[in-house]
Amino acid sequence: MSLTVDTVRPLQWGDDGLRVLDQRKLPASLVYENCQTAGEVAEAIRSMRVRGAPAIGIAAAYGVVLAARERHAQDPASWRELIEGDLECLAGSRPTAVNLFWALERMRKVILTATEEPVGQLLAEAIAIHEADISSNRHMGGLGAAYLEGAQGILTHCNTGSLATGGYGTALGVIRTAYRQAAKSIYATETRPWAQGARLTVWELNQDRIPATLIADSAATLLMKAGRVQWVIVGADRIAANGDTANKIGTYALAVAARHHGVRFMVVAPMSTIDWNTAHGDDIEIEERDSKELLADSFLTQSSVITAWNPVFDVTPAELIDVIVTEKGTVEKPNPAAMQQLIH
Amino acid sequence: MSLTVDTVRPLQWGDDGLRVLDQRKLPASLVYENCQTAGEVAEAIRSMRVRGAPAIGIAAAYGVVLAARERHAQDPASWRELIEGDLECLAGSRPTAVNLFWALERMRKVILTATEEPVGQLLAEAIAIHEADISSNRHMGGLGAAYLEGAQGILTHCNTGSLATGGYGTALGVIRTAYRQAAKSIYATETRPWAQGARLTVWELNQDRIPATLIADSAATLLMKAGRVQWVIVGADRIAANGDTANKIGTYALAVAARHHGVRFMVVAPMSTIDWNTAHGDDIEIEERDSKELLADSFLTQSSVITAWNPVFDVTPAELIDVIVTEKGTVEKPNPAAMQQLIH
Repeated sequence: MSLTVDTVRPLQWGDDGLRVLDQRKLPASLVYENCQTAGEVAEAIRSMRVRGAPAIGIAAAYGVVLAARERHAQDPASWRELIEGDLECLAGSRPTAVNLFWALERMRKVILTATEEPVGQLLAEAIAIHEADISSNRHMGGLGAAYLEGAQGILTHCNTGSLATGGYGTALGVIRTAYRQAAKSIYATETRPWAQGARLTVWELNQDRIPATLIADSAATLLMKAGRVQWVIVGADRIAANGDTANKIGTYALAVAARHHGVRFMVVAPMSTIDWNTAHGDDIEIEERDSKELLADSFLTQSSVITAWNPVFDVTPAELIDVIVTEKGTVEKPNPAAMQQLIH
Repeated sequence: MSLTVDTVRPLQWGDDGLRVLDQRKLPASLVYENCQTAGEVAEAIRSMRVRGAPAIGIAAAYGVVLAARERHAQDPASWRELIEGDLECLAGSRPTAVNLFWALERMRKVILTATEEPVGQLLAEAIAIHEADISSNRHMGGLGAAYLEGAQGILTHCNTGSLATGGYGTALGVIRTAYRQAAKSIYATETRPWAQGARLTVWELNQDRIPATLIADSAATLLMKAGRVQWVIVGADRIAANGDTANKIGTYALAVAARHHGVRFMVVAPMSTIDWNTAHGDDIEIEERDSKELLADSFLTQSSVITAWNPVFDVTPAELIDVIVTEKGTVEKPNPAAMQQLIH
């Protein structure tokens, strides 16, 4: 399979440890930092050098390898006790990231059963987690691209690409596969206030020589009215059991506008994103971030009467979603029964 | 009438000439510059120190006064010929601004008929244009606020306030009047990519001690879903004869989202904004601005495959507008016949 559309890897394992692409510095500078301890990996996650739920899980798995190397060298007899502190440190780096706990749980099973050379066995598991993520993304890429045959234009939101995952991406993976099959006009929103689209998505598409057009978030509805896009494709932070999807703020706005214009709407996410214990999107709490992300310094004074409302996510109801794509298959017109088909 | 909610004046006439608030420096610094010639006024308009169609017209009128003072002192016999170059210079400062030509035409009539002391007569006309704008805005404020009695929350877009007009504002004037009548929750969008909301609207509301909440453009739809706003109120750059309204990019997105959520949508603009020669919004050309407003420097290189689409305006069809407010009255559910009532 040609990889000319997939060259970016935010996490690279080597003899020196885990090389981490510092996403805060993109697109101005491409800087990898080397993490040689679990503590350094935890700090890379905490400080947002690493972001995106799948990428966070993979980084944590490599962090466990680094911890095992250190603790086993320290005391081969008691390394299993010593490493507990490192696992806690990694688990505390981003408390809300579901993939983080899932990856640590997989690594813990190997810790418990590893015999000789536990570091090698743990490294094999971390590499397996990393490679499975990329291969799931490629598989979803094919499943999603099958819907896009007649589409001339595609709009995506936030960053769901190689930078947010082990590589290839979820929604952006579908776009990569579709683009490889036939040229499309690809549009990316800026995604205020963090500008994941303006800073990250167009950066990785540029790296991979995939032409794309950046738009202001508020221009997306006009783009649809002008007939320039037939599909909106986004990722997900959490999917409820009925298909309601929490994703980056602005996703819901795109879904409402898409339905108004007869533009179709696709969500791409691995099975681990589905929260079967949450029945309905209304039960998903919307996290809010610091108003400083929006307000100029002059409005942060005591006398200011200006505040900001800065929700991170919104929830798109299942009835506005045409198809959810996972590595286990797709769900058209999602509802609780259709979603259950993914696990039966 | 109490003016505690209306203290900002972007244009101030004095013995030294026209003081112009440099809007490019807000909200970080409040800097007035003094224009003593028509050329300096034209440059203030060209460089966007002055923005907003009504404010541009008023500034140009004062520019004519400055030109007359200079030319009449130069040669009281031929000042009418000498001033023609100044009028051309002012007219060329922002070729698309309709209010600019309207204001220059009013000033030209006084130039042609002025007898003794033409400078005083021209100044009286410029002040009349300025004061009529403020008084129209106050009148529209009352007409619009009458619709908002039960509303708890109001969302506005871009800057339509004192900074964009002679004072008080159009859409923001309605919000001022409504706020004076009863406290409301006022929300302002950032309005990317120029951030007129984040830089200007919340600045002038802060100056006037009117509490407001800034949101990312893409959070507006969630705001509506959460039931926090009952009205969206915007200005207009051009209104077609059927009520279709061209306004800052993102206005149409808000109108689509408002209709989806049962939120009502109001346009506030003076009669001079209505273009009776344009039958339908589809006939309004959408201006595009430089892609540099969106793209980071690293995407401006020759080898980059990343571009940007940066439309300045969009058109909201009349069927998504609940009411248009002008100084001559209001038009509910606008259509060609209802719009005609404004001039009969």
